[in-house]
Amino acid sequence: MSSDYKTTKGQDFDRGTFESLLRRKVFLWQSFEPYGAVKGLFDYGPPLETLEAEVINIWRDHFIRTEKMMALKCSMLTPYEVLKTSGHVDKFADYMCKDPKTGEILRSDHLIKDVLETRLKSDKEARGEKIEDAEEDQKKKKKQAKAAKAAVKLDDSVRQDYEHTLATLDDCTGDDMGALIKKHDIRNPTSGNEVEPPVSVNLMFQTQIGATGKEPAFLRPETAQGQFLSFQKLLEYSDGQLPFASASIGYSFRNELSPRSGLLRVREFLMAEVEHFVDPASGKKHPKFHTVRDVTLPLLSRTTQNEGGSTPETLTIGEAVDSKLVDNETLGYFLVRIQAFMAKIGIDMRKLRFRQHMQNEMAHYAADCWDCELLSSYGWIECVGCADRSAFDLSVHMKATGVPLQVREPLKEPRRVEEWTALLDKKKSGPKFKKDAGKVQAALDGLSQDVREKLSISLRDEGKVSVDVAGVEGGKVELGKELVTFQKESRTETMREYIPNVIEPSFGIGRILYSLMEHVYWTREDDIARSVMSFLPTVAPIKVLVVPLQKDARFATLLQTLSDRLDEDQISFRVDQSGVSIGKRYSRNDELGIPFGITVDYQSLEDNSFTLRDRDSTKQVRASLDEILEAVVKMCKGKMGWEEIRRMLPAFESKEEQEG
Amino acid sequence: MSSDYKTTKGQDFDRGTFESLLRRKVFLWQSFEPYGAVKGLFDYGPPLETLEAEVINIWRDHFIRTEKMMALKCSMLTPYEVLKTSGHVDKFADYMCKDPKTGEILRSDHLIKDVLETRLKSDKEARGEKIEDAEEDQKKKKKQAKAAKAAVKLDDSVRQDYEHTLATLDDCTGDDMGALIKKHDIRNPTSGNEVEPPVSVNLMFQTQIGATGKEPAFLRPETAQGQFLSFQKLLEYSDGQLPFASASIGYSFRNELSPRSGLLRVREFLMAEVEHFVDPASGKKHPKFHTVRDVTLPLLSRTTQNEGGSTPETLTIGEAVDSKLVDNETLGYFLVRIQAFMAKIGIDMRKLRFRQHMQNEMAHYAADCWDCELLSSYGWIECVGCADRSAFDLSVHMKATGVPLQVREPLKEPRRVEEWTALLDKKKSGPKFKKDAGKVQAALDGLSQDVREKLSISLRDEGKVSVDVAGVEGGKVELGKELVTFQKESRTETMREYIPNVIEPSFGIGRILYSLMEHVYWTREDDIARSVMSFLPTVAPIKVLVVPLQKDARFATLLQTLSDRLDEDQISFRVDQSGVSIGKRYSRNDELGIPFGITVDYQSLEDNSFTLRDRDSTKQVRASLDEILEAVVKMCKGKMGWEEIRRMLPAFESKEEQEG
Repeated sequence: MSSDYKTTKGQDFDRGTFESLLRRKVFLWQSFEPYGAVKGLFDYGPPLETLEAEVINIWRDHFIRTEKMMALKCSMLTPYEVLKTSGHVDKFADYMCKDPKTGEILRSDHLIKDVLETRLKSDKEARGEKIEDAEEDQKKKKKQAKAAKAAVKLDDSVRQDYEHTLATLDDCTGDDMGALIKKHDIRNPTSGNEVEPPVSVNLMFQTQIGATGKEPAFLRPETAQGQFLSFQKLLEYSDGQLPFASASIGYSFRNELSPRSGLLRVREFLMAEVEHFVDPASGKKHPKFHTVRDVTLPLLSRTTQNEGGSTPETLTIGEAVDSKLVDNETLGYFLVRIQAFMAKIGIDMRKLRFRQHMQNEMAHYAADCWDCELLSSYGWIECVGCADRSAFDLSVHMKATGVPLQVREPLKEPRRVEEWTALLDKKKSGPKFKKDAGKVQAALDGLSQDVREKLSISLRDEGKVSVDVAGVEGGKVELGKELVTFQKESRTETMREYIPNVIEPSFGIGRILYSLMEHVYWTREDDIARSVMSFLPTVAPIKVLVVPLQKDARFATLLQTLSDRLDEDQISFRVDQSGVSIGKRYSRNDELGIPFGITVDYQSLEDNSFTLRDRDSTKQVRASLDEILEAVVKMCKGKMGWEEIRRMLPAFESKEEQEG
Repeated sequence: MSSDYKTTKGQDFDRGTFESLLRRKVFLWQSFEPYGAVKGLFDYGPPLETLEAEVINIWRDHFIRTEKMMALKCSMLTPYEVLKTSGHVDKFADYMCKDPKTGEILRSDHLIKDVLETRLKSDKEARGEKIEDAEEDQKKKKKQAKAAKAAVKLDDSVRQDYEHTLATLDDCTGDDMGALIKKHDIRNPTSGNEVEPPVSVNLMFQTQIGATGKEPAFLRPETAQGQFLSFQKLLEYSDGQLPFASASIGYSFRNELSPRSGLLRVREFLMAEVEHFVDPASGKKHPKFHTVRDVTLPLLSRTTQNEGGSTPETLTIGEAVDSKLVDNETLGYFLVRIQAFMAKIGIDMRKLRFRQHMQNEMAHYAADCWDCELLSSYGWIECVGCADRSAFDLSVHMKATGVPLQVREPLKEPRRVEEWTALLDKKKSGPKFKKDAGKVQAALDGLSQDVREKLSISLRDEGKVSVDVAGVEGGKVELGKELVTFQKESRTETMREYIPNVIEPSFGIGRILYSLMEHVYWTREDDIARSVMSFLPTVAPIKVLVVPLQKDARFATLLQTLSDRLDEDQISFRVDQSGVSIGKRYSRNDELGIPFGITVDYQSLEDNSFTLRDRDSTKQVRASLDEILEAVVKMCKGKMGWEEIRRMLPAFESKEEQEG
């Protein structure tokens, strides 16, 4: 993949060079380096931490404020019972194989994929076919040298079998994978040892609350559950009116067993999740859908994927919803808002698409699901999932706790309903069942309408019925005509009760930030050693670089004035007073993505004018302090672009930059 | 305490009423309520989540941007070794007693305190003395009725013993507390059972990374350790120049065993921690100290506390540092900045003080420590700790890992140093020690200057020396003159190496938010049922309440225009179209702390003018849409106050408010 991926200027992208820039400019690093670093955990240094804060503020403004969502912060520590009910205790797991001799733990699907792909490449080589990505292959071969003998030709049937296995691996159960490992003699590539059969390992971090040992807990795997459990509070806050949405920006955890792919698969990650609660009877209409109907999106449908295609179709969301390609207006509205958010933070729109989930990718209860995928050197990566979770979560929690996570609303027209009642005769059942009388009535209350109707017939025909009552008279209770009556009654219903459906756009902030960094990275045409991070002024971690022409005490007062004024306008800046040329100073700060440079030179001392440099074009203008600052403030707020400024203020030609 | 605490208007504060407001307006609640709620874990609803975001943004601006701190985000999951080195595995613990019959776990110091205080109160009652806080006492007595027989008179000597025990409880070891429990026959007050002796229980949440069982880990108890381990990256980012500060806003965890006091003692909490790294040889001067020298602070010194006083002295920070009351300029500078931050977010300055730690409160390595305490109905509570951690953390991590967490800087003047060298003769030691020769040299390298000098004398006098070398020749190696030489050599040093000292202001965000909510809460003089949360416009969760005079379709267009304009200015707002009177709508939204109200009435339809209402004074002005919005924007940015607006725009008298 890496070799196909191009920078925004169409240049070859070299991940090694890019990663070395990220390290050199302390964007990020593996956590706890002095202790040998921990896989899947990363620290963010000043540029990335601040970039994240800017992106989160835009997210808050774009979603929470603009859409009037209810911001929520729920606990990360989560009791066992909550995640048992949600299904995470049983289903949030990966299959693992253990190498019994080394103790190494390998993800079963990764293991099968790695070994078979290596064999297929070796086969290609043996057949003298060109291998697409020679360099990458070299690396893999070195690593797996012990297990894979170079250039082994396979039978045609074996090759086809491998290819089929790889194509269908995602659908395999643990047993399926165990069989594949036996069948193809798949071993741990680093040791050559046979591995134990796949076992399911839960991916949640377990701990306990308190010291009694009675409160097992997990670190949450998603922020959603806390939002569902707050449903009644939110309903209250919205005066009982649906639809409404909650939104939560917080950390979730996933105990990856062998993390790879850098920032794309980590053990501790920031998410921004929206839960939009809607009345399923409303057709999931959205009140603002008409405002976005004509916006076009690149949509890669399930049908296209089933036909082997990977090129998205560009449609207006109106067309997509009308044709039922996108299930409903609310889902469609969010897809548009997600795309707008991505554009706002500077994502390259040519590297964005929406991909519909295949049937086997979705949870069984999900109605439809679209991922917003961003293209990076790792390929197309899911960065936002936008799923219709139906009423699943609220229903299971309501069932488990008995707390009504539902809406009660007055019916517009009262409605007559006919229902079978099943009642014990209190006077006679009391003496007979004593303290168990309540249990018997509860058992009757639990009978469905159908069963009540059938029992009424039995009672009429046989004079008695038998009802299951746990813990009373051996579990089965006989009731005669004197004890029980079944009756059809009609009553007027004035309230409607329903469990809302949930549409959930869920953002992986780390993945978005990583993709963004790849998208804004490029190198100067005249010197590929000069890298640039073209962050938009609105998200750039530092807005202004201040460079005095050279070290000279006479600049001190002007520098102080400039600093005070930038502080007043709340513009973050960095002063670079090092001895190197201005060109060099600009150049190395381009790697931090600082969009604007202000130079203080000898003319500044005379007329209080400064030059303002644009990072991307390296063009400069010269103007008064007030004009320069006004321009910077407007560009940092996204209210004006460089081209406008350039037309407004006089150009300035610098020799320094070319020399640098 | 509760009964002494007053609102900002001097009214009695009733915590029950206040907490009921917080619940009703969904500021916060205990997490996982449908599952029975978990102690010490809280969810924030929309008003509090947004308040937190506003406060954090001000913190970022006040500290990170203005002070050019390096923002960092480090992992919460932390390997065992890191926290073993930092001392947390051994020392971050509380003493607990177990009730062997009920399995209940009690904090030993709380247990002793509760039981002895109950007995002392009972004694007072028996003596017929007035009990200060009768109501509170009633509650306690009810709870502990089983254990404490009402009104038992104590001997004078016993009473004095109890009082002395309570006064010195903080200095007790686990064994001391065990002895006290035996001596005073202290039992679990809820069961009456004897308890087991105190054992130390670590307060960190434990988990493990991966599935191998080889990576035990904790959730971090503070954000500081990650910052220390990033020291080399930060030094690189600052081009090797000290002082500099890192700053981290993130979650920490503390597995409280019996949490109480609501938001003040929780298991999962947001902190904002600054680590300011400074050369100890600089006298911990601060370059901006002169800008704050004349600012006054309420300082409660160790001396005053030792003398039993609790009234802080108001001093300028210049005086305090000059007299060495505050240890150094850097610590002093931060105290001033902390006070300014508290004022900015709306803390009542009459409810803020700085308290110096007593000697026995500080970690053994700490040079000085001041807490910024805020007064609430729980008393004076530490909300920011500002400690001088000296070089402790960097030193221990450097020792444990061998990674140099230190600064190397060129000396201004090269300096001659004389040093004893200890060298093996390579030709002769090689054949003798073979592969162990390196270990022997390493052991020699590890000898201090003093030891080398002594050994040189032994070698001269006795012809041989004996050196400890782990794992070679039984741990002790004999070296004769032919194998080793000790020599005094002088060389020129051009670099200086030192481990920086760290000044650490550490903010507990949850405690600050809770105190702030108590500080801004009051009730209207004319109707104590009408509560107000007087958040400053800069931090208020929602800035504007929009109220149409009544439900009338003719208002729809104006409401839409108003909404669009507020959105354009990025001002958050809420529309209240419910049927109740305007006065009532304002009144119930005062509880959310919305600072401004805009009314749309019939005159608005005629001349596009609106009224703007100030929450605190309930005064109104009437002006054009443009004027109203400009006023709101300026007030929400903190650039203008209501009094200025009121002088600028014409007043408006409303009948509705009084009627509401």
